[in-house]
Amino acid sequence: MDQEILLDAASRVQRLKMFPYFDIAHYVLMVISVRDDMSGTASLFSRKHPLSCWLSSMLMCFAGSFLANFLLGEPVIAPFKRHDDILLATVVWYLVFYSPFDIVYKFSKMTPVKIALSVLKEVQRAYKVSHGVAHAAKLYPNSYLVHILVGTAKGAGSGVIRTFEQLVRGIWAPAHNELLRPTFATKGCLAASIIFALEKQSYYISAPHDIVYLVCLMLQHG
Amino acid sequence: MDQEILLDAASRVQRLKMFPYFDIAHYVLMVISVRDDMSGTASLFSRKHPLSCWLSSMLMCFAGSFLANFLLGEPVIAPFKRHDDILLATVVWYLVFYSPFDIVYKFSKMTPVKIALSVLKEVQRAYKVSHGVAHAAKLYPNSYLVHILVGTAKGAGSGVIRTFEQLVRGIWAPAHNELLRPTFATKGCLAASIIFALEKQSYYISAPHDIVYLVCLMLQHG
Amino acid sequence: MDQEILLDAASRVQRLKMFPYFDIAHYVLMVISVRDDMSGTASLFSRKHPLSCWLSSMLMCFAGSFLANFLLGEPVIAPFKRHDDILLATVVWYLVFYSPFDIVYKFSKMTPVKIALSVLKEVQRAYKVSHGVAHAAKLYPNSYLVHILVGTAKGAGSGVIRTFEQLVRGIWAPAHNELLRPTFATKGCLAASIIFALEKQSYYISAPHDIVYLVCLMLQHG
Repeated sequence: MDQEILLDAASRVQRLKMFPYFDIAHYVLMVISVRDDMSGTASLFSRKHPLSCWLSSMLMCFAGSFLANFLLGEPVIAPFKRHDDILLATVVWYLVFYSPFDIVYKFSKMTPVKIALSVLKEVQRAYKVSHGVAHAAKLYPNSYLVHILVGTAKGAGSGVIRTFEQLVRGIWAPAHNELLRPTFATKGCLAASIIFALEKQSYYISAPHDIVYLVCLMLQHG
Repeated sequence: MDQEILLDAASRVQRLKMFPYFDIAHYVLMVISVRDDMSGTASLFSRKHPLSCWLSSMLMCFAGSFLANFLLGEPVIAPFKRHDDILLATVVWYLVFYSPFDIVYKFSKMTPVKIALSVLKEVQRAYKVSHGVAHAAKLYPNSYLVHILVGTAKGAGSGVIRTFEQLVRGIWAPAHNELLRPTFATKGCLAASIIFALEKQSYYISAPHDIVYLVCLMLQHG
Repeated sequence: MDQEILLDAASRVQRLKMFPYFDIAHYVLMVISVRDDMSGTASLFSRKHPLSCWLSSMLMCFAGSFLANFLLGEPVIAPFKRHDDILLATVVWYLVFYSPFDIVYKFSKMTPVKIALSVLKEVQRAYKVSHGVAHAAKLYPNSYLVHILVGTAKGAGSGVIRTFEQLVRGIWAPAHNELLRPTFATKGCLAASIIFALEKQSYYISAPHDIVYLVCLMLQHG
């Protein structure tokens, strides 16, 4: 591939605005994961316990922020400050759970749509990991381990938060947590975090930031 | 009702000093709820595990503060700074669990006494919700959702904290949490928080603050 | 005993450098406690879930800091900032779980070695309690209860953190927490914290700080 094209593509991917399309893809996939986790009881549960259902979905949609904020001692409630994000996630939650004839849910589960959503979500994930590392690096300049952990938490926090999200729904499954069997996505986030953290030390990785970003993104796609 | 009288009553209710009478009522009801939760094993448990029993009671007495502090990223331990509150709660805990002939517990469970205590407690609850909203509004001026959540947490935090309070006592009942089946008190707190949060925007509610306060109080009494 | 010798010994104990010998003893005992908690499944688990196993061990090694930071609203992730501590704990974790022929584990379980390690660990514990009290006293000068709680958390946090450490390993045993049946070590930490907290008020305890330190240390040894 021509280097010019690569650099240009990398630069474009990195400058993409996350809001709202990429965020929507992320929210849809997260709310669907909450709904699938309820399996057969979803329609009954969502009607009987809307508050618990909404809070569960919000916990999953902003899982990375909640976990990173908790680890860094920042206000856990902070994601609720961004009204447009919450509103968007709430609309997505409403459509996935209560749309007439369940069309939104059924449409999102179709293979080509699901793949498109996943691609968008992975781009957003790379963005979140890179921001997590950068944020931690600002707070603790020389603590690489903290950078890596915060980056991973931002990108793959939903696996850890799921245990507590299930608790909100009255379910407790301690034997199925992400730390026991890290998924591919979590490992990808860990790898990306390590690369971003190393990149901060300019003398380890000399490639332009845009390329590093693209490599990390591809790494996650696997 | 004459408007003068109403304004006067509202102003008085709002200026009531919470410490110590209203606080005592709150502590008594909270410690009793801990004791009732143990049902038959209360007298045995309180003698065998006094530390766990005391911590359980403190967690419930200051549940609103613990939850609000956690959400806002403030020190969770902060309620333990107020020595007179803790001392008062400890005295109440001691009397409810260990008073001779169990008279304090039996007396507090009598219907007229219980109603009186509940009235006092609801007045204190309105006070806490209003302070929770005001505190959150000071930290995050434009995040109405945060105001509402913190106000609700301050007023009805005990429902959420109960799950962890039970954990301190070695009991785990994830299927019975407040978020699944919010009680009337929680819904009242949510309504009051919303009203207080709207009131901060002077152009939504034009009634004097005292009257709003009284309405919220009545709303909670149901 | 001659007072000179006592004062000299006390002064020396207090000025001991914790890193690395005392810390190593603490880490070895903590990692062994994690391994013993897995009992028969340890070798299988440590090979199948190394990430979960490592995180469990780290949680236990730095339990006091995690708990104290959580209570004081400081970043929970802070212990990961100290790279040399984490590296040392990781090396200990690796040796205890994966050393050839299991020699490190078997050697550490021999009675004389175990006693030596325990003595070193108790010296470190007194140091941690004293620092916990001093740190809390700096933040909240007049809140004795906070000093005592933070001191105890620093010294005996592993009992409380164990419940969550087990959660990381997919095990949930709410009925066996430290608060229900505080061990002797926890009670010793509580006593030491109270003494250190009182000592801050110079008019309660007039003995030199070094002697107080030594008394607290002995108190813990029991």
